[in-house]
Order: sequence, then structure tokens, then C-alpha cells
Amino acid sequence: LLNWYTMRTFPKLVGGLSDFFRSPLSNTRKSQWCQWKRAMHQVELTSVRYPNVKRGPYATVDDNDIKFFERVMEPSRVMTDPDIVDSHNVDWLKMVRGASQVLLRPKSTKEVSEVLKYCNTRRLAVCPQGGKTGLVGGGVPVFDEIIISTSLMDDIIAIDGISGALTCEAGCILEDLDNYAAGHGFMMPLDLGAKGSCHIGGNVSTNAGGIRLIRYGNLHHNVLGVEAVLANGEVVDGLTTIRKDNSGYDISHLFIGSEGTLGFVSKVAIECVKRPKAVNVAYLGLKNFNNVLATFRLARESLGEILSSCEFMDAESVHCVEQNLHLRLPIPKCPFYMLIETNGSNATHDEDKLMTFLDLLMRKKLVIEGTMASEPRHISNLWQTRERITEALLLDGYTYKYDISLPLTYFYQIVEEMRNRVGKYTIRCCGYGHLGDGNLHLNMTSKEFNEQLVHKIEPYLFEYIARKKGSVSAEHGLGFKKRDFIHYSKSPSAIELMRRLKNAFDPNGILNPYKVLPDLPYLFFHQLQVNLQSRQRHPKLLLEAYRRAWSGSSNGIALLQPRGEAIAVNTALEVAPKPEVRWVEVRWGPLPSNIRHDHRGDLPHRHSPEPPKVGEKVEKELQDLEPEVIERIPLVPSRGPIVSGPGPGLGLGLGLGPGLGLGLGLEVAAADLVGGTRQGEVELNGGTAGARRWDAMAGGDSRLDFVASARDHAAHQG
Amino acid sequence: LLNWYTMRTFPKLVGGLSDFFRSPLSNTRKSQWCQWKRAMHQVELTSVRYPNVKRGPYATVDDNDIKFFERVMEPSRVMTDPDIVDSHNVDWLKMVRGASQVLLRPKSTKEVSEVLKYCNTRRLAVCPQGGKTGLVGGGVPVFDEIIISTSLMDDIIAIDGISGALTCEAGCILEDLDNYAAGHGFMMPLDLGAKGSCHIGGNVSTNAGGIRLIRYGNLHHNVLGVEAVLANGEVVDGLTTIRKDNSGYDISHLFIGSEGTLGFVSKVAIECVKRPKAVNVAYLGLKNFNNVLATFRLARESLGEILSSCEFMDAESVHCVEQNLHLRLPIPKCPFYMLIETNGSNATHDEDKLMTFLDLLMRKKLVIEGTMASEPRHISNLWQTRERITEALLLDGYTYKYDISLPLTYFYQIVEEMRNRVGKYTIRCCGYGHLGDGNLHLNMTSKEFNEQLVHKIEPYLFEYIARKKGSVSAEHGLGFKKRDFIHYSKSPSAIELMRRLKNAFDPNGILNPYKVLPDLPYLFFHQLQVNLQSRQRHPKLLLEAYRRAWSGSSNGIALLQPRGEAIAVNTALEVAPKPEVRWVEVRWGPLPSNIRHDHRGDLPHRHSPEPPKVGEKVEKELQDLEPEVIERIPLVPSRGPIVSGPGPGLGLGLGLGPGLGLGLGLEVAAADLVGGTRQGEVELNGGTAGARRWDAMAGGDSRLDFVASARDHAAHQG
Ligand SMILES: Cc1cc2nc3c(=O)[nH]c(=O)nc-3n(C[C@H](O)[C@H](O)[C@H](O)COP(=O)(O)OP(=O)(O)OC[C@H]3O[C@@H](n4cnc5c(N)ncnc54)[C@H](O)[C@@H]3O)c2cc1C
Ligand SMILES: Cc1cc2nc3c(=O)[nH]c(=O)nc-3n(C[C@H](O)[C@H](O)[C@H](O)COP(=O)(O)OP(=O)(O)OC[C@H]3O[C@@H](n4cnc5c(N)ncnc54)[C@H](O)[C@@H]3O)c2cc1C
Repeated sequence: LLNWYTMRTFPKLVGGLSDFFRSPLSNTRKSQWCQWKRAMHQVELTSVRYPNVKRGPYATVDDNDIKFFERVMEPSRVMTDPDIVDSHNVDWLKMVRGASQVLLRPKSTKEVSEVLKYCNTRRLAVCPQGGKTGLVGGGVPVFDEIIISTSLMDDIIAIDGISGALTCEAGCILEDLDNYAAGHGFMMPLDLGAKGSCHIGGNVSTNAGGIRLIRYGNLHHNVLGVEAVLANGEVVDGLTTIRKDNSGYDISHLFIGSEGTLGFVSKVAIECVKRPKAVNVAYLGLKNFNNVLATFRLARESLGEILSSCEFMDAESVHCVEQNLHLRLPIPKCPFYMLIETNGSNATHDEDKLMTFLDLLMRKKLVIEGTMASEPRHISNLWQTRERITEALLLDGYTYKYDISLPLTYFYQIVEEMRNRVGKYTIRCCGYGHLGDGNLHLNMTSKEFNEQLVHKIEPYLFEYIARKKGSVSAEHGLGFKKRDFIHYSKSPSAIELMRRLKNAFDPNGILNPYKVLPDLPYLFFHQLQVNLQSRQRHPKLLLEAYRRAWSGSSNGIALLQPRGEAIAVNTALEVAPKPEVRWVEVRWGPLPSNIRHDHRGDLPHRHSPEPPKVGEKVEKELQDLEPEVIERIPLVPSRGPIVSGPGPGLGLGLGLGPGLGLGLGLEVAAADLVGGTRQGEVELNGGTAGARRWDAMAGGDSRLDFVASARDHAAHQG
Repeated sequence: LLNWYTMRTFPKLVGGLSDFFRSPLSNTRKSQWCQWKRAMHQVELTSVRYPNVKRGPYATVDDNDIKFFERVMEPSRVMTDPDIVDSHNVDWLKMVRGASQVLLRPKSTKEVSEVLKYCNTRRLAVCPQGGKTGLVGGGVPVFDEIIISTSLMDDIIAIDGISGALTCEAGCILEDLDNYAAGHGFMMPLDLGAKGSCHIGGNVSTNAGGIRLIRYGNLHHNVLGVEAVLANGEVVDGLTTIRKDNSGYDISHLFIGSEGTLGFVSKVAIECVKRPKAVNVAYLGLKNFNNVLATFRLARESLGEILSSCEFMDAESVHCVEQNLHLRLPIPKCPFYMLIETNGSNATHDEDKLMTFLDLLMRKKLVIEGTMASEPRHISNLWQTRERITEALLLDGYTYKYDISLPLTYFYQIVEEMRNRVGKYTIRCCGYGHLGDGNLHLNMTSKEFNEQLVHKIEPYLFEYIARKKGSVSAEHGLGFKKRDFIHYSKSPSAIELMRRLKNAFDPNGILNPYKVLPDLPYLFFHQLQVNLQSRQRHPKLLLEAYRRAWSGSSNGIALLQPRGEAIAVNTALEVAPKPEVRWVEVRWGPLPSNIRHDHRGDLPHRHSPEPPKVGEKVEKELQDLEPEVIERIPLVPSRGPIVSGPGPGLGLGLGLGPGLGLGLGLEVAAADLVGGTRQGEVELNGGTAGARRWDAMAGGDSRLDFVASARDHAAHQG
């Protein structure tokens, strides 16, 4: 007999803590909860497990902040009880654990907006949290980010009976929405194992895929509109229920899949599909992977438009469910399994198609075992052995999860290759997933987290994926755990563009920091440190890293801190008719401990709209700093730079005009060191905005303002 | 007998001029071409027809530019022959006519990149052009923008025989791609009347919808990846053929539907769908619109997953095709027509479904006439009366085209309303379109362009749409003709975000200017002028417009020019512990004619990475300018501003530190006047980057650099 305790309720149990406080617990639930709580406390803090990740330049929550939050929403929704907050610090997989001390549970967009506006001004980092079922550590804090949960934003606003457009708040649970839609003859276009817990806001933010993507497409297809709150509290109203709208850029797509780093999704409009009148599932056992592929092709061919799922599991995945969850398998053991579902509007036609398909399979001897279901209870039964694999694997101890896209030719080859490579260190190395979408879930387990095993897998696996032009994250996103591998799937130019977007949307970087995009400044200094220690000179590396860290900007002076030490990098410049960069100066010195958290890593967010507040004390500390110049790295002159100088660049400019402008400066500054976008002559303009001239002179943004009353003066010597 | 000269070849004839030069012409083609050419010259220049639109701050192409282009690509592909260029200045609808003098026909991404990089440095505006079938004037220049055509970028790179992923260059013609895909058992997921001429790059850039969107979704669904060239020449490689990839933000979506304003699409990867084994079309005649709606609902119900088109035409649309193109109608005349298509994998099942559906229709007496086809030639026949409406309407003279989304309840009501309102001024007022997607094409025609008629339609129609929460552009985009109406469909917050995106991607605004986003500075001064003349004081209006024009920035001095006069707006500021803005100064004076085109309207693009080149002559002219102060508009103190001052704000700052920094300035500057994002204290920091201090002092970006060696000094007096 199959075990009927479904996955659909399980994550609700562990994820949505609030449910436990609202409803009396059954004894089984209670004991499971205690068990989970115990397990939770065994999860190592992320900051300990990943010592290379440094806390960003954020403020720390204090009493005044709590008071502010309590003015914005009822105090009962500003939670600081460590027991409660802790359960929101740990992810569902128990892989990562943040150290947040505050959990906010807003009930409206307005509350979210006020909270974010405040946090942005105060430079308090936040972590948007939905159902906490994400599998890449994106939905829980890394350090002490304030958790903003959507759990109380769960109003269903409306459904359009004709078009199926459903509008709701971000915290609605996917399964609840589906039940609601069912009442109107519709179905949510996405479905996934975590549907009983995940929130639609989390789904949108991760561009969740799931088991029916092959038929109904991803959320870029189904989401009609999004309301989101930007980092500064601005509410961007992109909520619409019409299907077609080409009036301007479709900004909703920016929020789909951005994992809480570009905005907080507060409301969603999604197009539901007509609920199918007939659903059928075939569960097949196959001899080898070639037959799996052939079966898929045949399914596409014979089932055509009614094919709604084409899932694949290897023996190790399915047998794990049997072993760890004591589920009985629907068919005798086989090396490979497939689950093929149809959704259609005509039961007779669908059955006919399915029969033709199964018939062909038999005749071609592609399957060795099989069973079929068209009754909901039986269908759900068959899905168990697929949907509960994640859960079953967890019971082995620690899961090394990889969710990758690969061309079908290599789809299973990599599982076998990894099994050869790390098999002896693991309890299990298995593959399953959404075959129809080319999406493989490659999982390995061990009793406890084993860092060496990780190094056996990474970057080997990612290099393989990159060679085959696959993706290091097909549907789960990058979150915290996968962000450093983005370059295996995305080109440098694409990553740079993402960074530019992030800077434009969240200049202070308060929204879900340490997620999606790698922290380049740290990477950079990691590399730099190696260089310094080995006394090697790698100007190219340095410059490239420097340029990336500052992408979108052109000049500046860096204060960075790899492991306790402060490093300042100055680049010398001189504006001359054909200027060049000659060298980069590296200084190194101790960093006063009290500014560590305030300015360290300020680099990636330097386009911030507000000056960071420098307190008296910090100012003093800065005065005491006298970093030693340890390196002057000469630059290869052929890199096409814009500025030059034999020593610290000396810039002198004077602007004067009837508009009362005067600017005068003496400057050591940096410039865009690589690339040629700013190679043109730099012209200085005096006038009413004399100060701006300096900006230009420093090779900067050159946001020269042309003023009716201005006279242009340019003077400069190197 | 039906007229077999299909639409599919017609736009190729008039759009892709090059075809005429490459292949010998048949006599009919030749005479049509001459006819079209004559008509083309009758099209009024956009700059004349729309005198309010002013040329932006761009340079003018000179001989050196041409020489540069001729170095980048073969001289034969740098076209300046007025006859040839002119045919690329006029859109297919003959509604707008640019005055470009250069047409570039690059053959590779590299060439596009070099051209854009150069144009960006030189501030030469460009207009990306595909098949020139766009219906909102987006694909032709407004003034003298350089036309960059994709017509020679037409390589099909590959198709994946399993997944159907097709990769190609942007200039491939949609129909060619579909034929190519057909050879591999696939079909392009989009289809539209212009398929014989439109380019896939144009399709992607407009997020083209078409007749099968109801089944296969829009391009956000089907496009797998895009390679695009940014304004500065950077190539963003987002080309991928995998279906699922959540590794970071999906930047392709930024380019889909951005109409050439965010980047030049150079390559596209798109997922083709399995070519259906069975296609059926039912052509129905109906008595009233209620029956149309009931029929649609029934079609969705009975045809379910095989429904691939649900089109609607009123009598006036269809009869126009009969009248102007002499096509015979497939069924006797009726008040309303519908065209319903199915695509399926099983002919028997599909026919069965269709028959059940038609049977139901008859029994419910929903249709009065009908015919059906399943043979390709007959199907194409039936489609004629739908697909050739646009073309037929053109023959009336001038078409007032509106492509709107509306909830089905109001779908036809608006056609009747407009007919009542403007019927007597028009030859025809008709409605047709993609009913299944809620997308109505509302068209009116008159013999010649009639500005008064436009004012009868607009903004009345847009206000109606806004009230019903529809869209002013369902699928055609905003281009040039609809951009000023964006706010009827999009919230101010969404528009602001778009503007921010535009600024981040194309700071100099060289990519397809005058398209998609309204030119706020001009709007603003249009309003301002009214204020000045009436001597009314509307600081709020002024400020709001000002803030929007400068969105994303915080300070500056404006030189703007509404109709020949120059206006400079200075805002005074003073940095004080709790500063305030007290007033806005408006100056007004003549603008020297020769700088008109160089600096006027520089505002929206002030975040430009390079200083515009100011020639000697212009410098002199600027000196002669002495605009008169005509208004000092006092500000309401409660607007939460950051700066204040009784007269022209006087800023004095001094920064000094061991890092050799010194900054000194005396300044009249502006600040972010509205909104509270920059309300914090402004702190000044001397040190090695003294000049930057001024930026901060002026209330600016506050990109203060924290330098290990810096001392902070802040001094200021108002
Ligand atoms: C058993 C199981 C099966 C799964 N199957 C699938 C599957 O088939 N396909 C698939 O794609 N995923 C799957 N997942 C992963 C996960 O369920 C999805 O990623 C889901 O969409 C996450 O939703 P959530 O509400 O739990 O988000 P969370 O885990 O809370 O958060 C996920 C990310 O989104 C951000 N976020 C959450 N809410 C918001 C918001 N309102 N605004 C901005 N950012 C927000 C978080 O910061 C985080 O970065 C599965 C997970 C489990 C446990
Ligand atoms: C008879 C007819 C029927 C039509 N039916 C439909 C329909 O059903 N649905 C629909 O949506 N549209 C329809 N259209 C409109 C038009 O065909 C589509 O908008 C089409 O996608 C435009 O493609 P194009 O190559 O002709 O682009 P163009 O007209 O050349 O350009 C359109 C826009 O895209 C930009 N652009 C073009 N190429 C690029 C590029 N490579 N990179 C960046 N920007 C670029 C241009 O600057 C311009 O803003 C129809 C037009 C006609 C004439």
C-alpha cells in the first residue's frame, strides 16, 4: 500500500511555522515538528560554513529600528523571539542558516513599502521570504538580514471568469490558488512538489518551473503583471490582467526570476488555464536511457498537444523513495522510470492517443513495465514516487543538489560520469527531472556535509555543463549557493548587464544581498591577495577585476577588506591630450574595526543615491589610517586607456562663467582603466556648474551640463 | 474567384527595396513599384506633420562619418543615394517620413557593434530597421537618424532537430524561417500578415503577436535567447538554445518589445513548435456581437487544446477587402465574421472536435452562415479576408490605426461608440482582430490625413481604454505614433522605471530616439510656456515635470527650447543642516540657431558617459547668451526638499587630506526637488577626491568615496 502522507502537506509543516501556532497540533505533527526543530539547530551557520563570504556594508538592527517597524505594523507582526525567527533562518533543505534577529510579517504593499524605504535609508539589509521552499538558499538570510515574509499577504483579489486572469497577493500558497481556480473551472499553469507551501510571490521571484512547464510554459509566459516594491520603497504598479500589452517595456519580466534582488513582489496577476477535462498518467519502466529518449520522442509525436508532463527518474532516485519513505513502487524495479501525463479536453480522444502511444511503445519494445491511471486518487499515487524524491533524499543526511539544463544527448551521461567520480564518497548519486524540458536534477547524498566532496563535484560538474552549453540552474535559481557559478552559464557581457540592472534598481544593495550575483570585490581581493603574497604582478587580472567591481562607473578609490586588513587601491591619472594609465597603486593597511561593517565592500553600490552616514567616530578612525604603499603595478600601455601620469595624477581645472560657477581642484583620481568607451577627449566646461567639471576631469561620468549662460574654460596640466 | 495576389508577397515588394535591385522585375511589379514610389513622395515629412517634436541633441552625419562607415563595411553597403535611402524613410503605412540620408546594411554583429560604438561617441542617432512593416512608425527615422537595416543579416545558423530550437540572424524573414523549420517538421510559433517581409529581429523588438498567440504564446514565451548590441557597441551575448535557464536575470526579456530603444537585436534563438499534422479553419457569419462572444466561449470549451486562432471581423472590415481588393467573400454578407482555426496532431480527433463544435453552434443558432476548410490552399483562401484588411484599408487613403486590448465585455462597444462619434468624418470605422486575446484593431480611414479627426479620436479613445483598464497598444508597440499615450496604460511608477532602464542602457539616447517613451522635457516646456504666458504659478506642475525629465538624476541646469526660444531653469540650493528648496528660477532667452540641434533637449540623457563635443563656434554662441530671469517660483516648503537659499544658492566646500585632494567650488546648482529619497544630511568629504565632493554638495549622486587616507572636511555656507 502506498503511504498517503503526502509531500504536499509536509513542507507546509516545516515551512510555515505560523500554522502551528494557529491550529492545534496533532500528536504526530507535534513530534515531527520537534524533530525538525532539533535538526534545525544542528545546521551550521552560513557565516561559519562559508567563511569567505563577508558581511556587506550594512547597518545592524537596533531598538529604534524595531520601534519604527512597530509603528508601521502591529507589534505582534514584528517578531524577535529567537525561537520563531530561527525557524525562518534555516532553509527547507537544512543546508544554510542565517542569523537574522527580526522577522517582519507585513499585511499590505504599503507596509512593505514603508519598511523598505526605511531600511534603504538606514542601510539595513533585507531578505524577502515566501514559503521558504527554495532549494538554493535564496529565501533565508546569510547574515543578519531582516526577514520580510509574505505569509500574511495572502488575499486572493479576483479571478476573471472568462479569461482566467487571477490577481492575488504574493503570499498566497500555490495549492490554495489552484483550489480557488478550480472552483471557476481553471487551473494554475504551474505545479510543483512544493505547492502546499510555496507562495506565488516566491514562484514568480524564482521563475519556478515544475512538472507541467512542457505544456503551459514558464512564468514569463503566464504572469500577466506584477506589483513590486523597489529597494527605496517605491511601489511599481505593473499589475494588469490583460493578455496583450505592448505599451512600453514589460517590466514584470524584470521581477520574474530575480530572486528578491531587484524588488519585492507584492501582488501577482497570472493567467490560469482551463482545467483539463481528462487527465491520464502512464508510469513506465525502461531498460536503458536510450529507450527513455526514444519514448520521449514518441510521446511528443503521438500525444502532441495533450502531453502535459514528461518526467524521468533513475533507479537510485525511485529506490530512495522506497527505502527512506517506505512507499511501495507502482511497478516492479527497473533501471529507469518515466512518468508521462496528458491533459486534454476530450477523454475519449485522449485515451485513444494514449493507447496508440502505449501500443507503439510495446511494439517497439521500449518499455519493460508499465501502469496507467486516469482516476485522481491513482494519479496522485503515481506522482508520489516522483514528487517525493527530494524529501526522500534529505533523509540520507545532506543533499548535494544540482538542477541543470543539458541537451538530451548528454542528459544522463553526466549522472554516470559523476557516479564514477564521486560514487565512493556518497550514499547515492542519482538523476531525475523534467526530461521534457531538458532539465536534470542531479543529486548526491552523504551522511553529513562534506566539503571535500563538494570540491570533487565543483567546478568539475559546472565545467562539463559549460562545455555542453547547458545551464548551472535550470529552474531553482542561483540564490546563495549557486551564484558563484553564474559564469559557467552566462557570458561576461550578460553578467555585466545584470550587475548594471542591480545597481540601477538597488543602489545600496539592501535587497537580498549575497544572492544571484557573485560579490566581485571580494573575489577580486581574494585574487589580489594571492598576487601580493607571491609578489607577482598581474595588472591585467587586477584591472579586469577592478573594472568589473566598479562596472558602470568610471573612477574612484577603493577601500576593501579581504580578511581583516584594509586595502586601498588608487589609480593615478592625468588628463592630457592623449592620456594613458601608467600604473595602479596598491596600498595596504589595517582597517579600524568599527568601520568594518560600514564601509567595507561599499564598492559594488557606489552609485548610491545617498551619502553613507559617516559618524564622528568613524571620521576620526579614518584619519588614523595611513596605509602603506606596497605595490605600484605598471600597466601595459597598449590597453587603450584614457589617462596617464608619472606619479599621482595632478589635475587642475578652472571653470568660470556668468552663471557664477567656479570650480577648482587638485586631484588624485582613478579612471575607467580598461575598455575604450571613454577614450574621447575630455573637455572641461566652466560655468554655473563648476564643480561638475571635476567630475569630467577625473575621467568620470562627464555629465557636463550645458548652460545658456556658461562660458567654456578648460585648463589643465599634468 | 478569390484574388490570389497574396498579402504575403505584397509587403516584400514595397518593403525590401533591395529585392528590386537584385532580381529583374516583372512588368506588374515594376509598375506597382513606380506607383508606390510616387505615393511615397507624397508622404509629408514627420518633422512637418508633427512640428512639436524637436530634433534631439545629436550630431549630424558628415563626410568623415561616411568614411568611417565605409571602413567598417564595404562602401556599397553604406548607402547615401537619396532614392534608395528615401524608400527606407517611409513606413509601410505611408504615415510617417523621416529625413535620413544614410542607410547602413551591416552583415555581422561585429559591424553593428563598430557602427554603434562610433555613433555613440559621435552622438549620432540611429534607427534600427527590420522589414519596415511596423505599424506605429517605429522602424523609420523621425529626423535624420542613421538607418541601420538588418536586411543583409539573414543567415539561419542552426535548428535542433529534437527540441526545435532555431538560431538565426536578426534579418531573417519570418516566412523564410517558417519554411526552413517546416523542412525539419517544425513551425515558427508566430504568424502574422506581414510574414513575407517582417524580420525576426523586428518581431522580437516589437514582441509581435499575430494570429496564433492564443495557442503558442507571445515572444516572451518562445524566444530562448537574444544577442544584442548596446548603444555603446557592447555585444551582450544572451544567445542560448536551452529551454530552461534560471542562472541569473533573463536579460533577453529586456530586448523583447523594446522597439530598438534598448539595444540592437543581432541574433535570435527561438523555440519552434511541432508542425501540426492537421489544420482546420471554420469561417463563420454571425448576427450580432453577443453571438460572437458566445461562439468564442464555445470554441474554447469544445476545441480546447487544438484552438490555434480565434479572429473576428466586423462587416465594414470584410467589405473593405471586397471593395478595395476585389476579393470574393467566402460566405454571403453578415454583420459579423469569425475565423476559427485548429492545429492538432490527430486529424480524426480534430475533425471530430470541430464537428461537435459546429454542431453545437448550429443547434444554439449562434451562426447564420459558415464554411470550413482543411486543405492548405482553401485555408489560405479563407485567411485572405482577414489578413488583407490592413492592406485594403490603406487604399481608402489614410488609416487611423488603433491596436488595443480591452476586456471582452467592451470589445465591440468602443467600435460602435467611435462610429457614432466620428463616423461622419470617416470613410470607414471598423473593428477586427485577435478576439481570443482580447486584442481589437480599431481602424478609421479618410481620404487624406486630417488632423481634426485625430483630435476627435484622441484622447477620447485612450481615456475610454484607460477606464476599462485596457492597453493603448496590444501588439504593435508604441513606436513614434503612440508614445505620448503610454500613461493611459501604464502607471507613472512603471513609466519611471522604463525611463530608468532607458537611461541605464542608452545614456546618450542614440538608439531610436523619439520612440516608445515620451520626450518629457518637451512636454514639460509645453506646459511651462502656458504658465508663463498666463503668468500663473504652478510650482508643483513644474517640479513634477522637472523631476521626471531628470529622473534618476538629482541636480543640474537645464537648457530647453520649446519653439525657438531658450529657457534655462536653475534651481537654487544651499546645503545646510536642514536644507530646503525655496524657489525655482526660470530664465528665458533666445537660443542661437546653430546650437539648436546640438544641445537642445540634452536633459533626458544627461547620464552620458562622454562629454558632448562643444565646438569653438558653439562656445562663442553660448557666451552671447544672456537669458533673462522671468520667474522665480516660490516652492511650498512642505514638499520635503533638501536644499534652500534666498538667492542663487552659494556653495563653498573644501576638502583636504593626505591623499592630495583639494576641492573648491562656488556654485549655483539644482537638486532633486521632489520626493524624499535624498533627504538625508549631506556630508562633505575632502581627501583624495576633492572634486567629487562637489557632486555631493550639489545634492547629487553622493558618490562619496571613502578613502583610507582621507580626512573628512566639510565646510559650507549659504
Ligand atoms: C519538494 C520540492 C519540490 C520542488 N519542485 C520544484 C520544481 O519542480 N520546479 C521549481 O522551479 N522549483 C521547485 N522547487 C523549489 C521551490 O519550491 C520553488 O523555487 C518555489 O518557487 C519557491 O517558492 P517559495 O515561496 O518557497 O520561495 P522562498 O523559498 O521563500 O524564496 C525563494 C526566492 O524568492 C525570493 N522571494 C520569495 N518571495 C518573494 C517576494 N514576494 N518578492 C521577492 N522575492 C521573493 C526569496 O528571497 C528567495 O530568493 C521545489 C522545492 C521543494 C521543496
Ligand atoms: C499586413 C500587416 C499585418 C501585421 N500583423 C501583425 C500582427 O498580427 N501582430 C503584430 O504584432 N504585428 C503585426 N504587424 C506589425 C508588424 O509586422 C510587426 O510589428 C513586425 O514584428 C515588425 O517587424 P519588422 O521587421 O517589419 O520591423 P520594423 O517595422 O522594421 O521595425 C519595428 C520596430 O522594431 C525595431 N527593430 C527592427 N529590427 C530591429 C533590430 N534588429 N533590433 C532592434 N530593433 C529593431 C524598429 O526600430 C522599430 O521600432 C503587421 C503589419 C502588417 C504590415
